[in-house]
Amino acid sequence: MSKKNVFYAQSGGATAVINASACGVIEAAREHADQIGTVYAGHNGILGALNEELIDTSLESAEAIAALRHTPSCAFGSCRYKLKNLQDDDSEYRRLIDVFSAHDIGYFFYNGGNDSQDTCNKVSQMSQQLGYPLTCIGIPKTIDNDLPITDNCPGFGSVAKYVAISTQEAAFDIASMCATSTKVFILEVMGRHAGWIAAAAGIGAKKTGDAPHIILFPEIAFEPEKFLAKVKQTVDDHGYCVIVVSEGVRDKKGKFLHESDLTDAFGHEQLGGVAPVLARLIKQKWGFKYHWAVSDYLQRAARHIASATDVEQAYALGRATVEHALRGETDVMLTIQRDSNPPNYRWSIGNTPLNSVANVEFKMPRDFISEDGYGITDACRQYIEPLMQGEAYPPYENGMPQYVCLKKQLANKKLNTVFEKA
Amino acid sequence: MSKKNVFYAQSGGATAVINASACGVIEAAREHADQIGTVYAGHNGILGALNEELIDTSLESAEAIAALRHTPSCAFGSCRYKLKNLQDDDSEYRRLIDVFSAHDIGYFFYNGGNDSQDTCNKVSQMSQQLGYPLTCIGIPKTIDNDLPITDNCPGFGSVAKYVAISTQEAAFDIASMCATSTKVFILEVMGRHAGWIAAAAGIGAKKTGDAPHIILFPEIAFEPEKFLAKVKQTVDDHGYCVIVVSEGVRDKKGKFLHESDLTDAFGHEQLGGVAPVLARLIKQKWGFKYHWAVSDYLQRAARHIASATDVEQAYALGRATVEHALRGETDVMLTIQRDSNPPNYRWSIGNTPLNSVANVEFKMPRDFISEDGYGITDACRQYIEPLMQGEAYPPYENGMPQYVCLKKQLANKKLNTVFEKA
Repeated sequence: MSKKNVFYAQSGGATAVINASACGVIEAAREHADQIGTVYAGHNGILGALNEELIDTSLESAEAIAALRHTPSCAFGSCRYKLKNLQDDDSEYRRLIDVFSAHDIGYFFYNGGNDSQDTCNKVSQMSQQLGYPLTCIGIPKTIDNDLPITDNCPGFGSVAKYVAISTQEAAFDIASMCATSTKVFILEVMGRHAGWIAAAAGIGAKKTGDAPHIILFPEIAFEPEKFLAKVKQTVDDHGYCVIVVSEGVRDKKGKFLHESDLTDAFGHEQLGGVAPVLARLIKQKWGFKYHWAVSDYLQRAARHIASATDVEQAYALGRATVEHALRGETDVMLTIQRDSNPPNYRWSIGNTPLNSVANVEFKMPRDFISEDGYGITDACRQYIEPLMQGEAYPPYENGMPQYVCLKKQLANKKLNTVFEKA
Repeated sequence: MSKKNVFYAQSGGATAVINASACGVIEAAREHADQIGTVYAGHNGILGALNEELIDTSLESAEAIAALRHTPSCAFGSCRYKLKNLQDDDSEYRRLIDVFSAHDIGYFFYNGGNDSQDTCNKVSQMSQQLGYPLTCIGIPKTIDNDLPITDNCPGFGSVAKYVAISTQEAAFDIASMCATSTKVFILEVMGRHAGWIAAAAGIGAKKTGDAPHIILFPEIAFEPEKFLAKVKQTVDDHGYCVIVVSEGVRDKKGKFLHESDLTDAFGHEQLGGVAPVLARLIKQKWGFKYHWAVSDYLQRAARHIASATDVEQAYALGRATVEHALRGETDVMLTIQRDSNPPNYRWSIGNTPLNSVANVEFKMPRDFISEDGYGITDACRQYIEPLMQGEAYPPYENGMPQYVCLKKQLANKKLNTVFEKA
């Protein structure tokens, strides 16, 4: 029979909406049961294939699969595991093909960020070299929004919404307390290489004086004196100062702030977190009372306040993956195309060759950052705002969101070999 | 004419729902315009009265006042300012009565926590001593949930909901990543003296093995070796460990963890935050990769995920304040009475003499904490769960919640004296 099975895997950091893509893949595949066999999901991402741990999604109910659309995290498990370079050692790739062959896998759908698209590309090359027919499609995903060519990455719109709302709410709080108490609030957000998430915090600032007053981007070298002067001026002018800092901010020498001379000057190694480093710097210079927050996983897992647009795009990409595969597309990553800007934002799904995206980083364009380096421009606002549109609340029971835990039953192994790391 | 004006003030830390109480006071007063004059709100809490900065709420539209119900923070400004002891120096209290007299204030409604109820009590005593008739009613408010007699405090239900959901979401995240990455996640929450907020994180843990695996309460002295053993056991059993820690956790000597010998042992002063202290401790002992988050203001300002029950109670207390005052009640704090437990949770509003609550702290009963000190009991769950029920989403526009900023126009001053701090 010619009906091939699917191997789908989730890769890298979890997001609020990657399971919506999984939902799209599985639901679309079930609708095409005449052409597509079982969807197997990798247990802990690509490791699931290497270890021949394939979760049989056909054993999950339609309700459970539908609930993936409103469940954060990677429901099948993800991993941080980078395959070796194909040129150096192809044993991992050969193992993948062995497992795929044993389970009659004809479709490889890989849901992840930059590294993952590179992996997808290499798996595709290897399958061609070995003469094993495999349709390889990359599904974009990363809260960092740093994949090229696609207009935006699923996961980003939701973290953007969370960060924009959290910044505004904390700003309301400090504004009401600053007369006698806290003068400075610092929120640290993710984004080690690109400032997209930090930029999203700026959406709440509509006019001069609105919080956040200072955004620190990885793209702009940190200058302590200039920063401190801006903090003082802001407190003088508005009574308080709200700062949003990307974890990836670096000094002029390119060192992360929590590793920089600035930190060393305090005579100790930082336990982690750039927010407390800035807080201490401000306290020492100006004596202002401060508060700081580090969102960490909370920001990327916050399905309770996910962007409806983001959920819709993630889900649509999942469905489109199946549709593209059935049309015979391969060696591509699907993309979101922006067809028109607000107020009539419209998008559609396209694709791009895998080798065009692998290991390319999409950073904030300089004209998305204000001249002084501490805010966003209207062009940036026009880019981010539509991605945050709409609320896609999960169902609640007894005061808590009803996120799904799948059965995750593994398919029987067919190989009598075990994968061993080289 | 006998129609007296109201002085209403917000005191201490902001919450997600204190403005709902303000909304209730103002809307109820407007409905009783035949008996009650203008509602003045203190600009920055009690300082507004001392400085004769009275915000004239009659200049705010009905729509703006209604929007307070879904706006976090203290819309009129709050303060951290403790009045002197009446016995030591009564000048502040005399000043308050002068201002109230000048503006024909007959009602003093004070919305705050422990200190504020004490202040309310003293203002009431002073007005009696000076023969100035003043109806004094305290409206409870504190995320810490540590006021006595009232079943619970407005503000707590919403922070509980935020912390319970955030913990669950982060737990889903780490669960999906733990095979190859992070093994320990630590969330630091507020609650310097009482563990109510930390306890709320436990609501998501329904059965053995569910996150959070460890909750650290201020009520239970921290024992490093026991804690580290529990972390190891949890990672061994479940693959990861989620820890929620109250900022108020202390060691056996009663020192806050970030001031303790434990911290000194690292050879440096901590920049703030107990989460990174625990992270380092675990890393040094077991080498586990960790992530940590500090919610700080985000948790108490998170109106976007407020508890509908909390909003309803805060609003009802505001309205009831006016109704109690018109019935001639004075020298009381309003309370929430639990009339029945889940599944048929019912509550009503009562009151208690101000002097019964002033400066009394309501901590977690020992039987709300599990025997090993790291979790909550069914009794605790039954207490907290109903307070988190329901979602009360704010309206959104363009992807962002529409919180209101009031005009906050001050009434003309009538006194030609200025308040000077003694």
